[in-house]
Amino acid sequence: MTESADRDAYRDESDTMGTVKVPADRLWGAQTQRSLQNFRIGGERMPAPLIHAFGIQKQAAALANMALGVLEKKLGDAIVTAAGEVADGTLADEFPLVVWQTGSGTQTNMNANEVIANRANELLGGQRGTKSPVHPNDHVNRSQSSNDSFPTVMHIAAASEIVNRLLPALRHLHAALEAKSRAFADIVKIGRTHLQDATPLTLGQEFSGYATQVAYGITRIEGTLPRLYELAQGGTAVGTGLNAPEGFDTAFAAEAARLTGLPFVTAPNKFEALAAHDALVEASGALNTLAVSLMKIANDIRLLGSGPRSGLAELRLPENEPGSSIMPGKVNPTQAEALTMVCAQVMGNHTTITVAGMSGHLELNVFKPVIAYNALQSIRLLADAALSFTDNCLAGIEADGTRISEHVERSLMLVTALAPHIGYDKAASVAKKAHSDGKTLRETALALGYVDADSFDRWVDPHQMIAPTRKGE
Amino acid sequence: MTESADRDAYRDESDTMGTVKVPADRLWGAQTQRSLQNFRIGGERMPAPLIHAFGIQKQAAALANMALGVLEKKLGDAIVTAAGEVADGTLADEFPLVVWQTGSGTQTNMNANEVIANRANELLGGQRGTKSPVHPNDHVNRSQSSNDSFPTVMHIAAASEIVNRLLPALRHLHAALEAKSRAFADIVKIGRTHLQDATPLTLGQEFSGYATQVAYGITRIEGTLPRLYELAQGGTAVGTGLNAPEGFDTAFAAEAARLTGLPFVTAPNKFEALAAHDALVEASGALNTLAVSLMKIANDIRLLGSGPRSGLAELRLPENEPGSSIMPGKVNPTQAEALTMVCAQVMGNHTTITVAGMSGHLELNVFKPVIAYNALQSIRLLADAALSFTDNCLAGIEADGTRISEHVERSLMLVTALAPHIGYDKAASVAKKAHSDGKTLRETALALGYVDADSFDRWVDPHQMIAPTRKGE
Amino acid sequence: MTESADRDAYRDESDTMGTVKVPADRLWGAQTQRSLQNFRIGGERMPAPLIHAFGIQKQAAALANMALGVLEKKLGDAIVTAAGEVADGTLADEFPLVVWQTGSGTQTNMNANEVIANRANELLGGQRGTKSPVHPNDHVNRSQSSNDSFPTVMHIAAASEIVNRLLPALRHLHAALEAKSRAFADIVKIGRTHLQDATPLTLGQEFSGYATQVAYGITRIEGTLPRLYELAQGGTAVGTGLNAPEGFDTAFAAEAARLTGLPFVTAPNKFEALAAHDALVEASGALNTLAVSLMKIANDIRLLGSGPRSGLAELRLPENEPGSSIMPGKVNPTQAEALTMVCAQVMGNHTTITVAGMSGHLELNVFKPVIAYNALQSIRLLADAALSFTDNCLAGIEADGTRISEHVERSLMLVTALAPHIGYDKAASVAKKAHSDGKTLRETALALGYVDADSFDRWVDPHQMIAPTRKGE
Amino acid sequence: MTESADRDAYRDESDTMGTVKVPADRLWGAQTQRSLQNFRIGGERMPAPLIHAFGIQKQAAALANMALGVLEKKLGDAIVTAAGEVADGTLADEFPLVVWQTGSGTQTNMNANEVIANRANELLGGQRGTKSPVHPNDHVNRSQSSNDSFPTVMHIAAASEIVNRLLPALRHLHAALEAKSRAFADIVKIGRTHLQDATPLTLGQEFSGYATQVAYGITRIEGTLPRLYELAQGGTAVGTGLNAPEGFDTAFAAEAARLTGLPFVTAPNKFEALAAHDALVEASGALNTLAVSLMKIANDIRLLGSGPRSGLAELRLPENEPGSSIMPGKVNPTQAEALTMVCAQVMGNHTTITVAGMSGHLELNVFKPVIAYNALQSIRLLADAALSFTDNCLAGIEADGTRISEHVERSLMLVTALAPHIGYDKAASVAKKAHSDGKTLRETALALGYVDADSFDRWVDPHQMIAPTRKGE
Repeated sequence: MTESADRDAYRDESDTMGTVKVPADRLWGAQTQRSLQNFRIGGERMPAPLIHAFGIQKQAAALANMALGVLEKKLGDAIVTAAGEVADGTLADEFPLVVWQTGSGTQTNMNANEVIANRANELLGGQRGTKSPVHPNDHVNRSQSSNDSFPTVMHIAAASEIVNRLLPALRHLHAALEAKSRAFADIVKIGRTHLQDATPLTLGQEFSGYATQVAYGITRIEGTLPRLYELAQGGTAVGTGLNAPEGFDTAFAAEAARLTGLPFVTAPNKFEALAAHDALVEASGALNTLAVSLMKIANDIRLLGSGPRSGLAELRLPENEPGSSIMPGKVNPTQAEALTMVCAQVMGNHTTITVAGMSGHLELNVFKPVIAYNALQSIRLLADAALSFTDNCLAGIEADGTRISEHVERSLMLVTALAPHIGYDKAASVAKKAHSDGKTLRETALALGYVDADSFDRWVDPHQMIAPTRKGE
Repeated sequence: MTESADRDAYRDESDTMGTVKVPADRLWGAQTQRSLQNFRIGGERMPAPLIHAFGIQKQAAALANMALGVLEKKLGDAIVTAAGEVADGTLADEFPLVVWQTGSGTQTNMNANEVIANRANELLGGQRGTKSPVHPNDHVNRSQSSNDSFPTVMHIAAASEIVNRLLPALRHLHAALEAKSRAFADIVKIGRTHLQDATPLTLGQEFSGYATQVAYGITRIEGTLPRLYELAQGGTAVGTGLNAPEGFDTAFAAEAARLTGLPFVTAPNKFEALAAHDALVEASGALNTLAVSLMKIANDIRLLGSGPRSGLAELRLPENEPGSSIMPGKVNPTQAEALTMVCAQVMGNHTTITVAGMSGHLELNVFKPVIAYNALQSIRLLADAALSFTDNCLAGIEADGTRISEHVERSLMLVTALAPHIGYDKAASVAKKAHSDGKTLRETALALGYVDADSFDRWVDPHQMIAPTRKGE
Repeated sequence: MTESADRDAYRDESDTMGTVKVPADRLWGAQTQRSLQNFRIGGERMPAPLIHAFGIQKQAAALANMALGVLEKKLGDAIVTAAGEVADGTLADEFPLVVWQTGSGTQTNMNANEVIANRANELLGGQRGTKSPVHPNDHVNRSQSSNDSFPTVMHIAAASEIVNRLLPALRHLHAALEAKSRAFADIVKIGRTHLQDATPLTLGQEFSGYATQVAYGITRIEGTLPRLYELAQGGTAVGTGLNAPEGFDTAFAAEAARLTGLPFVTAPNKFEALAAHDALVEASGALNTLAVSLMKIANDIRLLGSGPRSGLAELRLPENEPGSSIMPGKVNPTQAEALTMVCAQVMGNHTTITVAGMSGHLELNVFKPVIAYNALQSIRLLADAALSFTDNCLAGIEADGTRISEHVERSLMLVTALAPHIGYDKAASVAKKAHSDGKTLRETALALGYVDADSFDRWVDPHQMIAPTRKGE
Repeated sequence: MTESADRDAYRDESDTMGTVKVPADRLWGAQTQRSLQNFRIGGERMPAPLIHAFGIQKQAAALANMALGVLEKKLGDAIVTAAGEVADGTLADEFPLVVWQTGSGTQTNMNANEVIANRANELLGGQRGTKSPVHPNDHVNRSQSSNDSFPTVMHIAAASEIVNRLLPALRHLHAALEAKSRAFADIVKIGRTHLQDATPLTLGQEFSGYATQVAYGITRIEGTLPRLYELAQGGTAVGTGLNAPEGFDTAFAAEAARLTGLPFVTAPNKFEALAAHDALVEASGALNTLAVSLMKIANDIRLLGSGPRSGLAELRLPENEPGSSIMPGKVNPTQAEALTMVCAQVMGNHTTITVAGMSGHLELNVFKPVIAYNALQSIRLLADAALSFTDNCLAGIEADGTRISEHVERSLMLVTALAPHIGYDKAASVAKKAHSDGKTLRETALALGYVDADSFDRWVDPHQMIAPTRKGE
C-alpha cells in the first residue's frame, strides 16, 4: 500500500493512551481498534441481540440524561438518533469485537460509545474522530460506567430474547404436543418402564406428559424474568452511582421499559447487580431444565419412531430428506437429533455460565461477555430448535395403529389387572409361566386355574386399564 | 458357624423368585436381601430423609386406602403404626440398601413394604416372614407402584428438607449479612473492580450486595416449591392409576399434606411425574445458583480477610483453630473454605442430576435414586455450611478501620470525581501521572493546573463518592 | 451426666489456642476435637483409603526422618508402629472428621498426627494427651506440612485405588465382553444407526466395540498414573521444603514406593504439586471418559434387552430379582441401571473436581478434601459397578437367535448391497417402494426389473454383508 | 422476482426424494439445499477446520479407490482436484450448513459430495446438477458412508488443530513462563497459602509452578493423540466395511497421513469408532485440565497484579488499553480476563461433549456435529488465548521489587524458621503475640526470651528459607 493510499484508508483516533490508526470507513474509534489488535482470539463476535440492546441502552441513557438536565438537548437528540441505528441493526458491521476481551465488556461499551459519538457528530455536521461536539465518554457514556451498562444490556438482551423469541416458540411446541395428545387420545398402547413392557396407556396420555413438561418449562422460564427485569444501570463504577445524577436509575429503567415494551425496573441493590450475575445463572438453570425436558421428549420420539421394521415403530415420522449417503432409502429422525444436540449444547453452556457466574471478585464480575454469549446462544438455539422440531417433525407424526395394537395385545404385563383379584404372587406366576412357555396370559391363567375365562376377559382389557378403578368396578 | 447357629441366625423369606435367607433379627424380607447381595456397590445408603419420607408415604397411602374402603381397618392401622416408626427414624437400621440399585428405587420401596409388613404383623401378634395377615405388596403397597411411590417420596423428602432445614439456615445467614451491612454502614472503603482499585463505597454497601444475593437465593428456591409440592402418587405403574381406586391420588396428597404440614397436592399429570424429574432438576438449578452466590461471597470474605500483614486485611475473621501444622500461629479462613467446597460439590451434584434427569425413557425415569441422593446431599450441605459459616465466621467478622482508611485514601481512582468537572481525558492524565510519579492525586492535579486546591478538596472526598450526585452538587 | 462422670469421660487436650475436652476413650487431640465442633456439616467422613494412605505417609515420613538423622529412633519406631495401625484400618474409628473442613486438609493431617502421637506415647508407656515423648507436630509431623502431606496422601490413595481396585475390575469387565464377542461371533443381526434399521453385523462385532471401549478406558486411566505417582512430600509449607532436611523428598518417595509396591517418585516441582491438583483433574477426566463409555454400553444392553415381547428383545438378561411392586412377573435391567447411575455420579464428580481444581490461589489449592472425596468415590463406584454389572448381568446374557433372525431378514437396508450393482438412486427407489407397499425387497426389486432373482439372492445375503468386499466378489 | 429471473437464478437439483431449486451460482446440490431449509437453527456453521478436513478425506478416499481399482482414473483425478479446493479453503462459501442438523453429519458429508461432484463435472467439461460423469454418491462417496467419513473428518480436524495450532501456542506460553521463572529467580517474596501470609519463596519458584502446569498440559494433550490418530474410515455404514473393497481402510489412512503429515492409522475396531467418540471425550478432558491450569495461573496473575495501591501489587502488568469508561487512568488485567473466560468456555464445552459422547445408541453416535463444534472451538480458543495472553501480558510483566520486599519483611510466618529450634508451640506464641501487639517477630521473640538476637538473625532470614535445610545448617 502506498503512503497516500494509507493516508486515505485510515484516520487517527485517540484515547487516553494515545493515537491509533482506524480504517477510515469505520465509525469505531481508538479503544475498539486497540481491542481488535489485542484480542485476536477465536472469531465469536458479540451476539447481535446484545449489540441491539446497547442501542436501546444508549438511547435510554441519553433520554434520562436530558430529562435530568445533565445532557444538552442538541447532543442528546443526536445520540438518540445514532443509538437508534445501533438498536435496529443498521450499524451491525461497526461492532467487530469478539467475546474474548475485557471481562467487564468495557471495550464493547466503548465500541458503542465511539460508534454513536462518531455517527452523532456526522449527524450534527461534524467529522469522525474529532470527539466533538459529542464525546464518547463525556456525552454518550454520561452518567454511566461499563460496569453498570454492560449488565444492563445483558438483561435487556436476555429478557427480550426470552420474551420475543423463546417463549413464543415454546408455546408453539406446546400447542402441537397438546394437539397430538388430543388426536391420539383413543389409541391404547403398551406402556414401557425400564424399557420393559408394562401396563397400557393411551398414546394421547403419553404425549400429555410431554406437553406438561413443556408447559412447566414455560412457567420455569417465566419465573426467572422478575430478576432479569432488574437493571444495574445507575450503579456506575462500583454500585454507588457516583457521577450519575440522583434519579438517573429509575428514569433510565422507565425509558428502557418504554422502548422495549418490557417491564424493566431499576435493581434495588446495584452492588449485587454489578458483582454477580446470579439472575443469568438462574435463567440458565431454567434453560437447562428445559433442555433436560426436550432431550427426554426427543429421545422418546426417536425410540417410538425406531424401525421401520425392526424397531418399536409405533410412530411414523415425516421423511424430510435422504438419510444416508450409503444406505439407499433410509430415513432418520434428524429433527430429533438436531434438537438433542441443541440440548447438549445448552447443558454445557450452563456449566460455563455457572463457572463464570461464581468467579466474580468484590465489586465486579469480569466474566460478563462469556455469560452473555452463552445465555443468548442457549435462548436462540432452544427457540429455533423448538420451532424446527415442531414444524418439520412433530406436526407430521402419525401413529401406526396396527403395530401399536400388536404390541399391547401380546404384552404380559396386562397381568397386573389380575393382581387385585388373585393376589400379586399368583399373578406373577402366571406372567412368568406364560413368558417361559411362550403362551398367552389367558391360556396360562386358565390352565393354572386361577381365573375363569369370563372373569379374565372382563378384568384383562387394555382399554379398561388406562385409568384408576372406578367405584363398583 | 454351626448349622444350628445358622438356623437361629437366619430365617427364610420368599418372593416371586423363591426363598432367601435373611438375618433373623432384621425386619426386611427377600427383595431387600436380594438387593444387598446383587448390588455390592459403594457404601452410600439411601439418605435418611428419604427413608423418613417413605414412612410418611406408607402412612398416607394406608390412610387413603382405608378411607376409600380398599384396606381393612385392622391391617391399615397396623401399617400406619409401623410406618410411623419408619417416619420417625426408629427403624433406621432396617434400611441397608445403597443408592446404586434399580433405577426406579423399587428395592427400597420393597424394603419399606417388607419392613412395615413384618413390623405390622408383629404388632398384630404374628410372625416375621409370614406375609400374613399383612402382605408387603397386597396391603402395604396397596394402590401403589414403586413408580409413583418413589417419586412421591423424592418430593416429600426434598420439599421437607428445603422448608425445614435449608430455608431457615439461609434466613439465618441473610440476617447475619444484613446485620453486618448495618454495622458497617459508615465505613468508607476502596472499591475494587477487576481486582483493581476503583471508586469508594461503604463496607456496609458491600455486604448489602451479599445480603441481596442470599435474599434472592431464598426467593429462587421458594420458587421451585410449587412443582415439588406436586406428588406422583396415584399414577401407579405408568401414570394411568391402574389398580388404584379413583380418588386415591387426591386423598393421598391430603394425608401427606396433613402429616407434613406442607401444601402437597396431587400432580395434575401423572405421566410427567413418573417419566421425568424436571422438578428436581429445576430445584437443583436453584441450589446451583445459590452455590454460585455463596462461592462469590465466601471468596470475597477470604480476599478481604487476606493477610494479616501482606494481604488486603480489611476484615478480621474469627480465629477458630490453629491453621497450620508447620507454620506456628497461622490462622486461616477455614469456614469460607468449607463453604466453597460445599458449593463445588453442589455444582457437581447439579451436573449429575442434569444427566440423570435427561435420561428417562418413555413411561419412567430410572435414575431416581441418584437424583434423590444428590439433591438431598446438596440441600443438607448448603444448609449446614450456611449455618456453620454464619456462626463460626460471619458473626465474628470485624472491620480493620485503620487499614481500610489507608487503602481508600491513597487510591488513585478518587480521580473519577474530577471527571465531571475537568473531563475524562484530563482526569485520566492526572491519575496516570500520579501513578508514574508516585505522588498523590492532589499534588498532581494542582501541579497540572487542572483544578485549584479548594475545588479539589470539595470534589474529591471519598465520603461524598458513595452515592449519586444530588441536585445542586 | 454428673460432674464426676464427666471427669472420667473426658480428658484435656491442648493446642496453641488452649485446652479442649476430648472423649477419654479417643486417641485424637485438641485440633481434631475443635474441627468436630466447628464443622458440623453433612456427615461425609474422609474416605477410608485416604486415612489408610495417611498411615503410609506417616510411616514413610518417620522412616525418612530417621534415615536422615532428624528423628530419634525410639520415637520414630513408635510412630511407625502406630502409623501402621492407621494404614491397616485398626484405628479407623479415630478419624471422625468430615470432608467439609479446612481446604488444606490440615485438620485431618493433625488428626493423624494426634492419633499417632497418642498411640505412640502409649506404646512407649506414656499417657494420652501429654504430647510426650512424641509430639504430634514436632515428631509425627516432622519435616512435613499439611500442605505437602495432604496432596501426597491424595496421590497415594488415588493411585492405590486405581491400581488395586479399579483396573482389575475393568480387566474383569473387558474379559467378559471379549468372551461374549467370541461367543456371539456367528450371530448375524440387524445393525441400527439413528436407531433406524441399517445394514447387518454380527452380535460379536457389536460386543467387540464395547470391549474396545473398555480396553481404551484402561489405557486412558493407566496414562494418568505417571502424574499421580509424583508426590508433593518435601515441599512443606509452600513448596520450598523449608524445615525439611535436604533429601527428605526422595527418601520419602522411596519409602512410600516400598510400602505400597507402586512406583512413587518425588514431584520434580513442588510448587505445582501444592498449588494445583491437575493430576487429579486429569485422572477424573479419564474416569469421566470411562463413564461415558460405560453409559453407552449399559444403554445398549438395556435397549437390546428391551421387551420381552414389545421391545427389541434380541438379548435375554439374567433375572436377578422381582422388578416391580405392582406388575407381577416383571424383570428389569437393574444392573444396567445401577451402572448408568454410577456413570452419572462420576460425571458430576468430574464437574466438582474441575471447579475445585481451578480454584487454587497462589501457593495452595484449598479444595483438597472435596477433590479427594469425589475422586475416590468415582474410582470406587466405577470399580464396584463394573464388577457387579459383569457378574450379575453381562456374564449371563444370552442371545435370542429367533428374534435376531426375524429382525435381520425383514430389514429394508439389505438394499445397500444392491447399490454397487444398480446404483444408489435405483436402490433407494426399491427400498422406498417396498416400505410403502409393505413388500419384501426381493419382490419389489424383481417387479421393478432392476435385478434378476439369481443376482438378488447372490448379492443380498446378510451373511455376506458383514465385511468389506473381497477381491473378485 | 420475475419468472425468467428466477429461471436464471436457480437450477434444479435432485436426490432420491425429488427435485429442489438451488441457487444457480452455488455448487451444492439437493441434499444441502434441503438441509438449509429444514434446519433454520442458530447460525453456527460447521467449523472451517472440519470442512478443510473433508477436502482431505475426499482426496484420500479417491486416491485409495483408484489404487484399489474401484474408481476410474479420469473421475478420480477430477475428484482429487476438486477436493483439494475444499481442503485449501477455496470453496469455503459452498458449505453453508449449520451444526444443528442430522446427528451423523450426513448432510455435511453430502454437501462435500455434491460440491465436489459439481466442481469435478465442471473440471471435466460438464454441467452442474447433472451428476454426470461424477455422481456424488456413487463416485465421490465411493466406498464410504457418512457414518465413517464424518468421524474420520472429526479426528483429522481435531488432531491437525491440536498439532498445528494448540501445541505450538502452549510451547510459546511455556517458554515465556520459563523465561520469567529464570528472570525472577532471585526475588524472594512472601508465600501465601489460604490467601494468608506464609513462608517465603522466590518469584521464580512461583512461576516455575506455572511453567510446570503448562508443560504437563502439553504432555496430557499429546497423550490423547494416539487415539485421535485412529480413523474410522473403512467401516462404512455400521463398522463392517460393507461396500468398501478390502484394504480400503489402510490405504485411506496412509493417504490421509501423507496428505497431512500426521501419523494417522486405521482404527483397529471400526464399531467403536462409529458408535462412540470416546477419543474426543478424552481429548476434551485434557483440554479441560489445561483450562483448569490456565484459570489458576491467570487468577494468580491478576491477584499479584492487583492494585496499583491497595492490592497486592507485586507484579506490574502491561497497560494495553484504557480500562474504564468512567474511571480515568484505570488499567485492568484484561488479557487474564479473556483467558479465564476462554477457560470457562472450555469447561462448559467439556460438559457438552460429555453429554453428547455418552448418548450414542447401538451402531452410531448421532451427536457428531455438536462434538466436533465444541472440541474445535475449545482447541482454537485455548490456542489463541494462550498466544494473546503470552504476548500481550505475560511477556511484559515486571516485578515490583520494593513492594515485594516490604511484604516479605513484615511477615509473621518467618516464625516458621524458629520452630525447629524452639518448638512449634513456643513459635506459635511468638507469632500470636507479635500479631496482637503489632510488633515485629524479632522484638517479640527477644522479649519473650525464647531466642537471642544473634540466633534470631541467623535463623530467620527469608533468603535462607526458600529451600530444604542443608546438612550442617
